[in-house]
Amino acid sequence: MKDFFHVKTSLEAKRDLVSAWKANPLGVEVIPITQALGRIVAEGLVSHEDIPPFNRSTIDGYAVCAKDTFGATEALPAMLEIAGEVQMGHLPEKPISPGQAAKIWTGGTLPEGTDACVMIEYTHLADDRTVLIEKPVAPGENVIHKGEDMQKGRLVLEAGRVLRPFEIGAMAALGHTAAHVVKRPKVAIISTGDEIVLPHKTPGPGHIRDINTYSLAASALEAGALPFTLGIARDEYEDVREKAERGLASSDILVVSGGSSVGARDVVVSVLEDLGPPGVLVHGVAMKPGKPLIIAVCQGKPVFGLPGHPVSALTTFNIFVKFAIKHLYAKSLPEPGKHGQLHASAESRKTDTAGRIDHGKNPVRPGGVDDSFGFQSQPLIVKARLSRNISSAPGREDHIRVRLRRQDGELWADPVLGKSGLISVLVDSHGEVIVPTQSEGLKKDTLVEVTIF
Amino acid sequence: MKDFFHVKTSLEAKRDLVSAWKANPLGVEVIPITQALGRIVAEGLVSHEDIPPFNRSTIDGYAVCAKDTFGATEALPAMLEIAGEVQMGHLPEKPISPGQAAKIWTGGTLPEGTDACVMIEYTHLADDRTVLIEKPVAPGENVIHKGEDMQKGRLVLEAGRVLRPFEIGAMAALGHTAAHVVKRPKVAIISTGDEIVLPHKTPGPGHIRDINTYSLAASALEAGALPFTLGIARDEYEDVREKAERGLASSDILVVSGGSSVGARDVVVSVLEDLGPPGVLVHGVAMKPGKPLIIAVCQGKPVFGLPGHPVSALTTFNIFVKFAIKHLYAKSLPEPGKHGQLHASAESRKTDTAGRIDHGKNPVRPGGVDDSFGFQSQPLIVKARLSRNISSAPGREDHIRVRLRRQDGELWADPVLGKSGLISVLVDSHGEVIVPTQSEGLKKDTLVEVTIF
Repeated sequence: MKDFFHVKTSLEAKRDLVSAWKANPLGVEVIPITQALGRIVAEGLVSHEDIPPFNRSTIDGYAVCAKDTFGATEALPAMLEIAGEVQMGHLPEKPISPGQAAKIWTGGTLPEGTDACVMIEYTHLADDRTVLIEKPVAPGENVIHKGEDMQKGRLVLEAGRVLRPFEIGAMAALGHTAAHVVKRPKVAIISTGDEIVLPHKTPGPGHIRDINTYSLAASALEAGALPFTLGIARDEYEDVREKAERGLASSDILVVSGGSSVGARDVVVSVLEDLGPPGVLVHGVAMKPGKPLIIAVCQGKPVFGLPGHPVSALTTFNIFVKFAIKHLYAKSLPEPGKHGQLHASAESRKTDTAGRIDHGKNPVRPGGVDDSFGFQSQPLIVKARLSRNISSAPGREDHIRVRLRRQDGELWADPVLGKSGLISVLVDSHGEVIVPTQSEGLKKDTLVEVTIF
Repeated sequence: MKDFFHVKTSLEAKRDLVSAWKANPLGVEVIPITQALGRIVAEGLVSHEDIPPFNRSTIDGYAVCAKDTFGATEALPAMLEIAGEVQMGHLPEKPISPGQAAKIWTGGTLPEGTDACVMIEYTHLADDRTVLIEKPVAPGENVIHKGEDMQKGRLVLEAGRVLRPFEIGAMAALGHTAAHVVKRPKVAIISTGDEIVLPHKTPGPGHIRDINTYSLAASALEAGALPFTLGIARDEYEDVREKAERGLASSDILVVSGGSSVGARDVVVSVLEDLGPPGVLVHGVAMKPGKPLIIAVCQGKPVFGLPGHPVSALTTFNIFVKFAIKHLYAKSLPEPGKHGQLHASAESRKTDTAGRIDHGKNPVRPGGVDDSFGFQSQPLIVKARLSRNISSAPGREDHIRVRLRRQDGELWADPVLGKSGLISVLVDSHGEVIVPTQSEGLKKDTLVEVTIF
């Protein structure tokens, strides 16, 4: 008999899970960059060429040899011979000699012999063939050099990067119309309870509609996972077991919500014990709402028995199931040090069947200062003043839902009172305030951090 | 001839757009709640029934008449006759009289005659038919009352609400498996430039690959819009006009990027003038990057001529095109005061062809403290210390890209230097710092707000 109902802190519970669960990498899929927003880069992407492939002007004006302009002023301009015009989308026809200039447009290719561009605003035509330069330019001024955007061999995107519009643009610049991304984890979801009916049905006496299947599936999507809903299980061993087995067979994570009564939870615990080893790891966490949480590992996959009350189910999902999803993503990336870059040869670009090579001297690793998935995946937190006292038992982490309200130029957090069985409590809330384990509560007027839902 | 190149502030530019553009509502579509995450509620949703439909126990224990327990202690417990057990998913078999109790499980229906529940932990069995209650309960304790979650007639979701997992759960609780949401605006995207080629092609001499189509399409998705990409237009009147007309015919907003040279921009301006009235409203904004921005209204739709440099294009998209998308959403909601609630009769739930009625005494309006779409749509902002001086010209709004770095327990913002023609500048950045119009710059070590990309 295990030490059930030995209540753990949320940190202990996460540690227990990670030490018992050997996460299998999710694998890689290749998708069009037009569908890749928000996905996680599976393999480092190395530039196979210099971007831009030539020196480009960033302005409309004249390409010149910078030293021909040194000392030029409005009163004493430099006088240069106009030796032609660079057409957009074409190479310059001929090199430019000292004392000459070529007309150029933004994005145009600098002719050989030039190293800077002068804005048209600082020039005057003396005649058809002669331009007066009224301001000196330094070498490189108003020019994007070959390879200045992405140098050949540079690690442009490291594995683990979240694809934002910028990264998608960079892939297009390099000629990649397909992205190698980590496959999304599948989260199987089961609602249990003899009193639960499908939402399109009119509940009979003593029945209520299933909420958790839908709110948890949406939460899984929000966390970058694919929900796989298995419907409602009766509070009976066979029904829960059959659905749990199907969930484990088809998904990476299994979530069973409900069975709020002790008897019903016992059914879930028995099933998870029998589907181990190791079976149930955690039964009860020191938090409110969410105390009756069950965490298990069955058939190598994490299983979460969430409390049936909708607020408790969503709170524990956000803390524990989202943690497991992040952990799975992290375990699906190449090991640190081995960036697993994709060296995009011209061939791999065409076929999108890229080989991996180990590259990475001084790899550029933007993103991910605080965690593997960068600042984008951090929750939005705002500071607000608490409008009333909140009491909390020491030894318990309390999650208090709040509404935000602006008054006299200040943001106030009003605790949304209501039992954890009420979905309307969450509908009425903007976010939550967490009272940490060691605290006995928070005083009115305290400046608190509100994590926006 | 209009006052072109009279540079405006970003606020003036937005005002000019809003006063010249009469936005057409986007319309409503009905989609499964399983696909509704992040969408905008089109019509207020009123509860057609009491949720829960009966008084429910929130614990395992005994349903009692509270006053029978008053004064009960461990030493002097109240003694009650066990008059039965409430089965889950069934109505209680008979009413309970004073002096009696019924065994009940979490979620069970309170029998008639009872008004509270006692946790099993505070009870003892004297014999099979007698329970000893060792702690008093107040009326209503451990009970969720009929209608306590959502009362019949209550406005549960007002128009304009962003659907989070909670709102989706509430819809399931009310029996709605389909959601009435605002249709997503379509954003047509054209890249222009004689030097631009499709990304899967190997650029010829003087050519570079199209970046903006892909990064702007991803930005449109991020903003809750559907991108409609029209490919690359040559810097010629006919080609730009033909694609612009197709874009206007098929979309709600048109975005034309590129044409960075004066000549190419003149082509875009001519086309937009001819497709008016009113045609071009703004040509040039006092910001960096992004100064050459064009804003027009053609055929009743807003058109944005974004600069071709990828950083400028994305910066102006985020400020102006996202503003237009939000404005369109706001204009698609029922007028303030008319909440346009959907009164969900049993019939409408079945058919999902709901009639509208004007309801709304004391409507509950959660969400949307700061703007119509609530806190969820606000950007994530973190505070960081600037690692070097930033200079800025007064009269110009500067957007400085930064990387975040943690050092000695503090978050530092390192400006990412680089020209606005470099997509890698954005790839390397976590967010931006805005230097407002009136400022001459920011000093090193200043605590700045970084808007995370």
